[in-house]
Amino acid sequence: MSTAESVSPLTLNRLSVYLRCLRHLQGQGVRRISSQELAERYLLSATQIRKDLAQFGEFGIRGVGYDVDRLAAQLTALFGLDREHKLVIVGMGNLGSALARFLGFNQGPFRVVAGVDRDPAKVGRRVDGLVVRHSDELARVVAETGAVIGVLAVPAEAAQACYDDLVRAGVQAVLSFAPVHVQQRPAVPVKGVDLRIHLEELAFLLRAGRGE
Amino acid sequence: MSTAESVSPLTLNRLSVYLRCLRHLQGQGVRRISSQELAERYLLSATQIRKDLAQFGEFGIRGVGYDVDRLAAQLTALFGLDREHKLVIVGMGNLGSALARFLGFNQGPFRVVAGVDRDPAKVGRRVDGLVVRHSDELARVVAETGAVIGVLAVPAEAAQACYDDLVRAGVQAVLSFAPVHVQQRPAVPVKGVDLRIHLEELAFLLRAGRGE
Repeated sequence: MSTAESVSPLTLNRLSVYLRCLRHLQGQGVRRISSQELAERYLLSATQIRKDLAQFGEFGIRGVGYDVDRLAAQLTALFGLDREHKLVIVGMGNLGSALARFLGFNQGPFRVVAGVDRDPAKVGRRVDGLVVRHSDELARVVAETGAVIGVLAVPAEAAQACYDDLVRAGVQAVLSFAPVHVQQRPAVPVKGVDLRIHLEELAFLLRAGRGE
Repeated sequence: MSTAESVSPLTLNRLSVYLRCLRHLQGQGVRRISSQELAERYLLSATQIRKDLAQFGEFGIRGVGYDVDRLAAQLTALFGLDREHKLVIVGMGNLGSALARFLGFNQGPFRVVAGVDRDPAKVGRRVDGLVVRHSDELARVVAETGAVIGVLAVPAEAAQACYDDLVRAGVQAVLSFAPVHVQQRPAVPVKGVDLRIHLEELAFLLRAGRGE
Protein backbone atom coordinates (compact mmCIF):
# COMPACT_ATOMS: atom_id res chain seq x y z
CA MET A 1 0.00 0.00 0.00
CA SER A 2 1.37 3.40 -0.99
CA THR A 3 2.42 5.96 1.54
CA ALA A 4 0.68 9.25 1.06
CA GLU A 5 3.93 11.06 0.18
CA SER A 6 4.48 8.92 -2.91
CA VAL A 7 1.17 9.82 -4.49
CA SER A 8 1.51 12.10 -7.50
CA PRO A 9 -0.76 15.12 -8.05
CA LEU A 10 -2.34 13.37 -11.04
CA THR A 11 -3.20 10.31 -8.93
CA LEU A 12 -4.69 12.56 -6.25
CA ASN A 13 -6.77 14.26 -8.91
CA ARG A 14 -8.02 10.91 -10.19
CA LEU A 15 -8.85 9.63 -6.70
CA SER A 16 -10.79 12.83 -6.11
CA VAL A 17 -12.69 12.25 -9.36
CA TYR A 18 -13.47 8.65 -8.32
CA LEU A 19 -14.82 9.86 -4.98
CA ARG A 20 -17.06 12.34 -6.79
CA CYS A 21 -18.35 9.56 -9.09
CA LEU A 22 -19.01 7.28 -6.10
CA ARG A 23 -21.02 10.02 -4.38
CA HIS A 24 -23.04 10.46 -7.53
CA LEU A 25 -23.69 6.69 -7.60
CA GLN A 26 -24.68 6.75 -3.92
CA GLY A 27 -27.18 9.46 -4.78
CA GLN A 28 -28.65 7.15 -7.40
CA GLY A 29 -28.84 4.24 -4.98
CA VAL A 30 -26.15 2.14 -6.73
CA ARG A 31 -24.57 -0.31 -4.26
CA ARG A 32 -21.97 -2.15 -6.35
CA ILE A 33 -20.02 -1.21 -9.43
CA SER A 34 -17.21 -2.78 -11.46
CA SER A 35 -14.22 -0.80 -12.66
CA GLN A 36 -15.54 -1.39 -16.19
CA GLU A 37 -18.97 0.11 -15.46
CA LEU A 38 -17.43 3.00 -13.56
CA ALA A 39 -15.14 3.68 -16.52
CA GLU A 40 -17.98 3.57 -19.03
CA ARG A 41 -20.33 5.76 -17.03
CA TYR A 42 -17.84 8.51 -16.36
CA LEU A 43 -15.49 8.22 -19.37
CA LEU A 44 -12.58 6.96 -17.27
CA SER A 45 -10.04 4.16 -17.78
CA ALA A 46 -10.94 0.84 -16.12
CA THR A 47 -7.29 -0.25 -15.99
CA GLN A 48 -6.31 3.03 -14.36
CA ILE A 49 -9.13 2.75 -11.80
CA ARG A 50 -8.03 -0.77 -10.80
CA LYS A 51 -4.39 0.32 -10.58
CA ASP A 52 -5.13 3.47 -8.57
CA LEU A 53 -7.42 1.73 -6.11
CA ALA A 54 -5.13 -1.30 -5.68
CA GLN A 55 -2.44 1.17 -4.58
CA PHE A 56 -4.66 1.90 -1.61
CA GLY A 57 -5.40 -1.70 -0.84
CA GLU A 58 -8.82 -1.77 -2.51
CA PHE A 59 -9.51 -4.63 -4.87
CA GLY A 60 -12.88 -5.11 -6.56
CA ILE A 61 -14.26 -8.65 -6.47
CA ARG A 62 -14.28 -10.25 -9.92
CA GLY A 63 -17.83 -10.37 -11.31
CA VAL A 64 -19.13 -8.38 -8.33
CA GLY A 65 -17.15 -5.14 -8.39
CA TYR A 66 -16.55 -2.59 -5.67
CA ASP A 67 -18.84 -1.92 -2.72
CA VAL A 68 -19.81 1.70 -3.45
CA ASP A 69 -20.45 2.80 0.16
CA ARG A 70 -17.34 1.10 1.49
CA LEU A 71 -15.10 2.53 -1.22
CA ALA A 72 -16.57 6.02 -0.81
CA ALA A 73 -15.97 5.82 2.95
CA GLN A 74 -12.38 4.70 2.41
CA LEU A 75 -11.59 7.48 -0.03
CA THR A 76 -13.32 9.96 2.28
CA ALA A 77 -11.05 8.88 5.12
CA LEU A 78 -8.03 8.81 2.80
CA PHE A 79 -8.62 12.46 1.92
CA GLY A 80 -9.09 13.34 5.57
CA LEU A 81 -12.66 14.36 4.74
CA ASP A 82 -14.12 12.59 7.75
CA ARG A 83 -13.30 15.62 9.89
CA GLU A 84 -13.75 19.37 9.59
CA HIS A 85 -11.09 21.63 8.09
CA LYS A 86 -11.32 25.31 8.96
CA LEU A 87 -10.41 27.90 6.34
CA VAL A 88 -9.24 31.49 6.60
CA ILE A 89 -9.53 33.68 3.50
CA VAL A 90 -6.88 36.33 2.88
CA GLY A 91 -8.28 39.09 0.69
CA MET A 92 -11.97 39.83 1.11
CA GLY A 93 -12.58 41.61 -2.18
CA ASN A 94 -14.95 40.26 -4.81
CA LEU A 95 -13.25 36.89 -5.05
CA GLY A 96 -12.74 36.32 -1.32
CA SER A 97 -16.33 37.34 -0.60
CA ALA A 98 -17.59 35.07 -3.37
CA LEU A 99 -15.58 32.15 -1.99
CA ALA A 100 -16.90 32.77 1.52
CA ARG A 101 -20.51 32.95 0.33
CA PHE A 102 -21.00 30.99 -2.72
CA LEU A 103 -18.73 28.18 -3.64
CA GLY A 104 -19.87 25.38 -1.42
CA PHE A 105 -16.92 25.73 0.92
CA ASN A 106 -19.32 25.70 3.81
CA GLN A 107 -20.78 22.31 3.04
CA GLY A 108 -19.21 19.10 4.15
CA PRO A 109 -15.79 19.05 5.71
CA PHE A 110 -14.69 22.58 4.78
CA ARG A 111 -15.80 25.64 6.68
CA VAL A 112 -14.72 29.25 6.24
CA VAL A 113 -14.18 30.56 9.78
CA ALA A 114 -12.47 33.88 9.07
CA GLY A 115 -11.56 36.45 6.43
CA VAL A 116 -8.92 39.17 6.61
CA ASP A 117 -8.10 42.17 4.42
CA ARG A 118 -5.55 45.00 4.42
CA ASP A 119 -8.13 47.57 3.34
CA PRO A 120 -9.50 49.42 6.40
CA ALA A 121 -12.72 50.05 4.41
CA LYS A 122 -13.36 46.28 4.32
CA VAL A 123 -12.44 45.55 7.96
CA GLY A 124 -15.54 45.14 10.12
CA ARG A 125 -17.79 44.31 7.14
CA ARG A 126 -20.08 41.34 7.57
CA VAL A 127 -19.91 38.67 4.82
CA ASP A 128 -22.40 35.94 5.57
CA GLY A 129 -21.63 34.89 9.11
CA LEU A 130 -18.12 36.40 9.14
CA VAL A 131 -16.82 39.76 10.22
CA VAL A 132 -13.76 40.78 8.15
CA ARG A 133 -10.67 41.29 10.35
CA HIS A 134 -7.51 43.26 9.57
CA SER A 135 -4.62 41.35 7.94
CA ASP A 136 -2.32 42.51 10.73
CA GLU A 137 -4.34 40.31 13.08
CA LEU A 138 -3.90 37.18 10.95
CA ALA A 139 -1.81 35.24 13.49
CA ARG A 140 -4.35 35.98 16.23
CA VAL A 141 -7.27 35.07 13.95
CA VAL A 142 -5.66 31.73 13.07
CA ALA A 143 -4.93 30.96 16.73
CA GLU A 144 -8.46 31.91 17.83
CA THR A 145 -10.31 30.03 15.11
CA GLY A 146 -8.08 26.99 14.60
CA ALA A 147 -7.95 27.59 10.85
CA VAL A 148 -5.62 25.06 9.16
CA ILE A 149 -6.04 26.01 5.50
CA GLY A 150 -5.41 29.50 4.15
CA VAL A 151 -7.08 30.67 0.94
CA LEU A 152 -5.27 33.38 -1.03
CA ALA A 153 -7.70 35.66 -2.85
CA VAL A 154 -5.32 38.56 -3.41
CA PRO A 155 -3.78 40.10 -6.55
CA ALA A 156 -0.60 38.56 -8.00
CA GLU A 157 1.73 41.15 -6.51
CA ALA A 158 0.52 40.49 -2.94
CA ALA A 159 0.47 36.70 -3.13
CA GLN A 160 3.96 35.81 -1.90
CA ALA A 161 3.86 38.14 1.10
CA CYS A 162 0.38 36.91 2.06
CA TYR A 163 1.46 33.26 1.72
CA ASP A 164 4.45 33.97 3.98
CA ASP A 165 2.09 35.67 6.48
CA LEU A 166 -0.10 32.56 6.46
CA VAL A 167 2.92 30.31 7.07
CA ARG A 168 4.00 32.48 10.01
CA ALA A 169 0.45 32.51 11.34
CA GLY A 170 0.58 28.71 11.50
CA VAL A 171 -1.74 27.35 8.79
CA GLN A 172 -0.78 23.96 7.39
CA ALA A 173 -1.70 24.34 3.69
CA VAL A 174 -2.69 27.09 1.27
CA LEU A 175 -5.02 27.24 -1.70
CA SER A 176 -4.01 30.11 -3.97
CA PHE A 177 -6.23 31.86 -6.51
CA ALA A 178 -3.57 34.46 -7.24
CA PRO A 179 -2.53 34.20 -10.91
CA VAL A 180 1.16 33.81 -10.08
CA HIS A 181 3.63 31.18 -8.90
CA VAL A 182 4.15 31.24 -5.13
CA GLN A 183 7.48 30.09 -3.69
CA GLN A 184 6.56 27.32 -1.30
CA ARG A 185 7.97 26.74 2.20
CA PRO A 186 8.67 23.04 2.85
CA ALA A 187 6.14 22.50 5.65
CA VAL A 188 3.23 24.35 4.03
CA PRO A 189 2.12 23.08 0.61
CA VAL A 190 0.45 25.60 -1.65
CA LYS A 191 -1.91 24.55 -4.40
CA GLY A 192 -2.53 27.04 -7.15
CA VAL A 193 -5.91 27.07 -8.84
CA ASP A 194 -5.73 28.15 -12.45
CA LEU A 195 -9.20 28.37 -13.87
CA ARG A 196 -7.83 28.72 -17.38
CA ILE A 197 -7.33 24.94 -17.36
CA HIS A 198 -11.10 24.55 -17.47
CA LEU A 199 -11.40 27.09 -20.25
CA GLU A 200 -8.74 25.25 -22.22
CA GLU A 201 -10.75 22.06 -22.03
CA LEU A 202 -13.83 23.89 -23.26
CA ALA A 203 -11.84 25.41 -26.11
CA PHE A 204 -10.78 21.90 -27.07
CA LEU A 205 -14.38 20.71 -27.09
CA LEU A 206 -15.35 23.67 -29.29
CA ARG A 207 -12.62 22.73 -31.71
CA ALA A 208 -13.76 19.10 -31.66
CA GLY A 209 -17.36 20.17 -32.20
CA ARG A 210 -16.47 21.99 -35.38
CA GLY A 211 -14.93 18.78 -36.68
CA GLU A 212 -11.52 20.30 -37.33
CA MET B 1 -4.31 9.46 -34.36
CA SER B 2 -7.32 9.96 -32.10
CA THR B 3 -10.26 12.02 -33.10
CA ALA B 4 -11.09 14.73 -30.62
CA GLU B 5 -14.41 13.13 -29.70
CA SER B 6 -12.76 10.00 -28.36
CA VAL B 7 -10.64 11.86 -25.83
CA SER B 8 -11.75 11.32 -22.23
CA PRO B 9 -11.97 14.19 -19.72
CA LEU B 10 -9.03 12.70 -17.80
CA THR B 11 -6.86 12.66 -20.94
CA LEU B 12 -7.83 16.26 -21.66
CA ASN B 13 -6.86 17.17 -18.13
CA ARG B 14 -3.49 15.50 -18.53
CA LEU B 15 -2.81 17.14 -21.89
CA SER B 16 -3.64 20.48 -20.31
CA VAL B 17 -1.16 19.71 -17.51
CA TYR B 18 1.53 18.79 -20.06
CA LEU B 19 0.98 22.06 -21.90
CA ARG B 20 1.38 23.96 -18.64
CA CYS B 21 4.63 22.07 -17.90
CA LEU B 22 5.94 22.79 -21.40
CA ARG B 23 5.23 26.51 -20.98
CA HIS B 24 7.10 26.43 -17.69
CA LEU B 25 10.06 24.74 -19.44
CA GLN B 26 9.92 27.32 -22.26
CA GLY B 27 10.15 30.02 -19.59
CA GLN B 28 13.31 28.34 -18.31
CA GLY B 29 14.82 28.11 -21.77
CA VAL B 30 14.63 24.29 -21.99
CA ARG B 31 14.54 23.17 -25.65
CA ARG B 32 14.33 19.39 -25.43
CA ILE B 33 12.97 17.02 -22.80
CA SER B 34 12.42 13.29 -22.56
CA SER B 35 9.22 11.79 -21.18
CA GLN B 36 11.33 10.51 -18.28
CA GLU B 37 12.68 13.96 -17.37
CA LEU B 38 9.25 15.53 -17.79
CA ALA B 39 7.79 12.88 -15.48
CA GLU B 40 10.46 13.37 -12.83
CA ARG B 41 10.28 17.15 -12.84
CA TYR B 42 6.52 17.39 -12.53
CA LEU B 43 5.66 14.13 -10.70
CA LEU B 44 3.93 12.61 -13.73
CA SER B 45 4.05 9.17 -15.31
CA ALA B 46 6.51 8.76 -18.20
CA THR B 47 4.55 5.85 -19.66
CA GLN B 48 1.35 7.87 -19.53
CA ILE B 49 3.01 10.87 -21.17
CA ARG B 50 4.30 8.73 -24.04
CA LYS B 51 0.92 7.07 -24.46
CA ASP B 52 -1.05 10.34 -24.34
CA LEU B 53 1.21 12.14 -26.80
CA ALA B 54 1.46 9.20 -29.19
CA GLN B 55 -2.35 9.37 -29.43
CA PHE B 56 -1.85 12.78 -31.02
CA GLY B 57 0.88 11.69 -33.37
CA GLU B 58 3.77 13.00 -31.27
CA PHE B 59 6.64 10.64 -30.62
CA GLY B 60 9.77 11.70 -28.75
CA ILE B 61 13.05 10.70 -30.36
CA ARG B 62 14.86 8.04 -28.33
CA GLY B 63 17.81 9.58 -26.48
CA VAL B 64 16.79 13.08 -27.62
CA GLY B 65 13.26 13.53 -26.34
CA TYR B 66 10.57 15.95 -27.40
CA ASP B 67 11.11 19.34 -28.99
CA VAL B 68 9.60 21.60 -26.30
CA ASP B 69 8.56 24.49 -28.58
CA ARG B 70 7.14 22.22 -31.25
CA LEU B 71 5.16 20.13 -28.74
CA ALA B 72 3.85 23.24 -26.95
CA ALA B 73 2.73 24.67 -30.30
CA GLN B 74 0.98 21.43 -31.22
CA LEU B 75 -0.88 21.20 -27.92
CA THR B 76 -1.76 24.89 -28.17
CA ALA B 77 -3.31 24.28 -31.58
CA LEU B 78 -4.93 21.06 -30.36
CA PHE B 79 -6.70 23.02 -27.61
CA GLY B 80 -7.72 25.69 -30.09
CA LEU B 81 -5.64 28.18 -28.08
CA ASP B 82 -4.09 29.71 -31.16
CA ARG B 83 -7.15 31.93 -31.59
CA GLU B 84 -9.23 34.13 -29.31
CA HIS B 85 -12.31 32.88 -27.49
CA LYS B 86 -14.74 35.48 -26.28
CA LEU B 87 -16.55 34.97 -22.98
CA VAL B 88 -19.81 36.32 -21.62
CA ILE B 89 -20.38 36.12 -17.85
CA VAL B 90 -23.91 35.51 -16.56
CA GLY B 91 -24.24 36.82 -13.01
CA MET B 92 -22.16 39.88 -12.18
CA GLY B 93 -22.20 39.60 -8.40
CA ASN B 94 -19.02 39.07 -6.39
CA LEU B 95 -17.97 35.97 -8.29
CA GLY B 96 -18.76 37.24 -11.79
CA SER B 97 -17.01 40.53 -11.08
CA ALA B 98 -14.00 38.68 -9.66
CA LEU B 99 -13.84 36.46 -12.75
CA ALA B 100 -14.06 39.47 -15.05
CA ARG B 101 -11.29 41.31 -13.23
CA PHE B 102 -8.99 38.97 -11.62
CA LEU B 103 -8.61 35.45 -12.83
CA GLY B 104 -6.39 35.84 -15.80
CA PHE B 105 -9.27 35.34 -18.21
CA ASN B 106 -8.10 38.38 -20.11
CA GLN B 107 -4.64 37.07 -20.87
CA GLY B 108 -3.92 34.80 -23.76
CA PRO B 109 -6.70 33.31 -25.81
CA PHE B 110 -9.62 34.08 -23.46
CA ARG B 111 -11.25 37.47 -23.24
CA VAL B 112 -14.32 38.52 -21.27
CA VAL B 113 -16.34 40.68 -23.65
CA ALA B 114 -19.61 41.03 -21.74
CA GLY B 115 -21.40 40.49 -18.43
CA VAL B 116 -25.12 40.33 -17.76
CA ASP B 117 -27.22 40.32 -14.58
CA ARG B 118 -30.92 40.18 -13.67
CA ASP B 119 -30.53 42.73 -10.90
CA PRO B 120 -31.44 46.23 -12.20
CA ALA B 121 -29.11 47.68 -9.53
CA LYS B 122 -26.14 46.00 -11.23
CA VAL B 123 -27.10 46.85 -14.82
CA GLY B 124 -25.06 49.76 -16.16
CA ARG B 125 -22.27 49.27 -13.62
CA ARG B 126 -18.76 49.36 -14.99
CA VAL B 127 -16.52 46.38 -14.12
CA ASP B 128 -13.07 46.91 -15.56
CA GLY B 129 -13.71 47.64 -19.23
CA LEU B 130 -17.24 46.18 -19.25
CA VAL B 131 -20.63 47.70 -18.71
CA VAL B 132 -23.06 45.20 -17.15
CA ARG B 133 -26.09 44.56 -19.38
CA HIS B 134 -29.48 43.16 -18.43
CA SER B 135 -29.95 39.38 -18.68
CA ASP B 136 -32.99 39.93 -20.91
CA GLU B 137 -30.59 41.25 -23.55
CA LEU B 138 -28.37 38.15 -23.47
CA ALA B 139 -29.14 36.99 -27.03
CA ARG B 140 -28.42 40.48 -28.39
CA VAL B 141 -25.22 40.74 -26.32
CA VAL B 142 -23.97 37.39 -27.65
CA ALA B 143 -24.79 38.36 -31.24
CA GLU B 144 -23.11 41.78 -30.89
CA THR B 145 -19.93 40.57 -29.19
CA GLY B 146 -19.43 37.19 -30.80
CA ALA B 147 -19.10 35.48 -27.41
CA VAL B 148 -18.73 31.70 -27.82
CA ILE B 149 -18.27 30.62 -24.19
CA GLY B 150 -20.73 31.43 -21.42
CA VAL B 151 -19.60 31.55 -17.79
CA LEU B 152 -22.27 30.83 -15.16
CA ALA B 153 -21.62 32.75 -11.95
CA VAL B 154 -25.12 32.50 -10.53
CA PRO B 155 -26.58 30.73 -7.47
CA ALA B 156 -27.53 27.05 -7.73
CA GLU B 157 -31.24 27.70 -8.17
CA ALA B 158 -30.72 29.95 -11.19
CA ALA B 159 -28.13 27.80 -12.97
CA GLN B 160 -30.32 25.64 -15.21
CA ALA B 161 -32.44 28.54 -16.49
CA CYS B 162 -29.34 30.64 -17.17
CA TYR B 163 -27.63 27.74 -18.97
CA ASP B 164 -30.74 27.33 -21.14
CA ASP B 165 -30.72 31.07 -21.84
CA LEU B 166 -27.08 30.81 -22.94
CA VAL B 167 -27.90 27.90 -25.24
CA ARG B 168 -30.76 29.87 -26.82
CA ALA B 169 -28.49 32.91 -27.14
CA GLY B 170 -26.12 30.81 -29.24
CA VAL B 171 -22.97 30.21 -27.18
CA GLN B 172 -21.11 26.99 -27.96
CA ALA B 173 -19.90 25.92 -24.50
CA VAL B 174 -20.47 26.84 -20.87
CA LEU B 175 -18.24 26.94 -17.80
CA SER B 176 -20.37 26.70 -14.67
CA PHE B 177 -19.37 27.83 -11.20
CA ALA B 178 -22.85 27.15 -9.83
CA PRO B 179 -22.63 24.44 -7.15
CA VAL B 180 -25.22 22.22 -8.82
CA HIS B 181 -25.52 19.75 -11.68
CA VAL B 182 -26.75 21.35 -14.91
CA GLN B 183 -28.70 19.26 -17.42
CA GLN B 184 -26.74 19.57 -20.62
CA ARG B 185 -28.13 20.12 -24.14
CA PRO B 186 -26.36 17.97 -26.74
CA ALA B 187 -24.77 20.76 -28.77
CA VAL B 188 -23.53 22.86 -25.85
CA PRO B 189 -21.15 21.13 -23.42
CA VAL B 190 -21.12 22.46 -19.88
CA LYS B 191 -18.14 22.03 -17.62
CA GLY B 192 -18.74 22.40 -13.91
CA VAL B 193 -15.94 23.79 -11.77
CA ASP B 194 -16.00 22.41 -8.25
CA LEU B 195 -13.33 24.08 -6.20
CA ARG B 196 -13.78 21.56 -3.41
CA ILE B 197 -11.65 19.16 -5.47
CA HIS B 198 -8.65 21.38 -4.76
CA LEU B 199 -9.50 21.57 -1.08
CA GLU B 200 -9.77 17.80 -0.95
CA GLU B 201 -6.26 17.46 -2.31
CA LEU B 202 -4.99 19.86 0.31
CA ALA B 203 -6.80 17.93 3.03
CA PHE B 204 -5.06 14.80 1.79
CA LEU B 205 -1.66 16.49 1.97
CA LEU B 206 -2.41 17.64 5.52
CA ARG B 207 -3.23 14.10 6.47
CA ALA B 208 -0.05 12.82 4.80
CA GLY B 209 2.01 15.50 6.54
CA ARG B 210 0.88 14.30 9.94
CA GLY B 211 2.16 10.85 9.04
CA GLU B 212 -1.18 9.15 9.59
